[in-house]
Amino acid sequence: MQIPVRIVLVEPTHPGNIGAAARAMKTMGLTELALVRPQAFPSDEATARAAGARDVLERAAVHDSLLDAIAECSFIVGTSARSRAVEWPTVEPRECAARIVEALEAGNRAAIVFGTEHSGLTNDALARCTLHVQIPTQPHFSSLNLAMAVQLLCYELRLAMLAAAEHDSPHVADIAGGHTGRGGHRFATAEELEGFNAHLERVLVAAGFLRDAHPRQMKLKLRRIFQRAVLDKNEIDILRGVLTALDPAKRVVAEREE
Amino acid sequence: MQIPVRIVLVEPTHPGNIGAAARAMKTMGLTELALVRPQAFPSDEATARAAGARDVLERAAVHDSLLDAIAECSFIVGTSARSRAVEWPTVEPRECAARIVEALEAGNRAAIVFGTEHSGLTNDALARCTLHVQIPTQPHFSSLNLAMAVQLLCYELRLAMLAAAEHDSPHVADIAGGHTGRGGHRFATAEELEGFNAHLERVLVAAGFLRDAHPRQMKLKLRRIFQRAVLDKNEIDILRGVLTALDPAKRVVAEREE
Repeated sequence: MQIPVRIVLVEPTHPGNIGAAARAMKTMGLTELALVRPQAFPSDEATARAAGARDVLERAAVHDSLLDAIAECSFIVGTSARSRAVEWPTVEPRECAARIVEALEAGNRAAIVFGTEHSGLTNDALARCTLHVQIPTQPHFSSLNLAMAVQLLCYELRLAMLAAAEHDSPHVADIAGGHTGRGGHRFATAEELEGFNAHLERVLVAAGFLRDAHPRQMKLKLRRIFQRAVLDKNEIDILRGVLTALDPAKRVVAEREE
Repeated sequence: MQIPVRIVLVEPTHPGNIGAAARAMKTMGLTELALVRPQAFPSDEATARAAGARDVLERAAVHDSLLDAIAECSFIVGTSARSRAVEWPTVEPRECAARIVEALEAGNRAAIVFGTEHSGLTNDALARCTLHVQIPTQPHFSSLNLAMAVQLLCYELRLAMLAAAEHDSPHVADIAGGHTGRGGHRFATAEELEGFNAHLERVLVAAGFLRDAHPRQMKLKLRRIFQRAVLDKNEIDILRGVLTALDPAKRVVAEREE
């Protein structure tokens, strides 16, 4: 059974963890590994720890930005060790896996994103995610190794795929065979969302709503609202139409042309 | 939440795995580590990989034999990567964890035993287990790292304990607080079983049933029968009474004394 979910490691600092993650993935039927700004890759240590999963390492894609690593994905899970101050839908691995399988069945491409060893994902990275997952750990010792976290989530994904296959879910056989699910609702990809967010920011800067003062924090808050809404492509198109209609820059042009 | 289940690593060859296992245990609330004939321990590599779980390493017990490591345990799970030719109750990690929590609630001491990295547990070791657990993996790449397997089983244990606590299971709070469950049926410990098996063998040798020809294989088959029955202490006492009554050596003595 192939499980077509991309595992994305953002700025991994220990090469051994990259190799161990590759091996963990392969034991559970995942093979698509993406690395964002790894500190060292390829490396002998990663290769050694990958054991029989060197093929996963060799095919790993290396990216300069998280967006590049998830551009065409439309269901993105962010792993989070800490409880964040900001409200965000957070689930445990078991529910997370079930939601991912549903999303795959509906034709989405899915990714699970893991942050750097010491501090996890940044708020900016988490704001690009559809869903956050938190692994239940001992409250005073939650320092789960990166590759261990990959192992646990891949294991839950495998169980969720096996359960869906057992219940004769119509598209799971396709997905597991390497095809795309065709079930239903495809969400907007990270790239489509990025295009919308950039558009929104341009318009708000032009309107004088976003200024230099605290623009990053405000941009993040806006981004979260639309991320949480889990938009589809059609909704993105509608919203971009709204933005175009409201864009002061466009109005100036229109007024000049009159 | 403390989970009083002993993790036993039999002949681990990579010190790094010992450290990683300690860390994996601690993230999930387990602290009792036993090592049987480790190739190197203590070691800097184990300490480094344990990260904040050095206390688990420092308290780890080192034993010369598996029996010593599990002597007072009465619910023993053996991990098995391969499907064995021999029939044995084998479950997946989720069911395994539920069974362990049940056993704890009934006042049993439980252990999960992991074999050496390359070949797993021997048939002799597996024959000492109440239950076998197999982690579902990709059929053609089942080479799960030792510490990863520890992580997965500890994670399932934690979830099972949390679920039991949520359902107001009467003894889980006691167990999680470090007390012994008092629910019900305590099984025979590994040491009590060992005593019975040794007694059985003595009697069968005296009776001429066990000979030098293939005694080991036959002993293993006999052991499995009684292991699979999951005997309690009272049943062990009954069976040992039966053995004493049937023991030709004793009869000779009795006849002489007449």
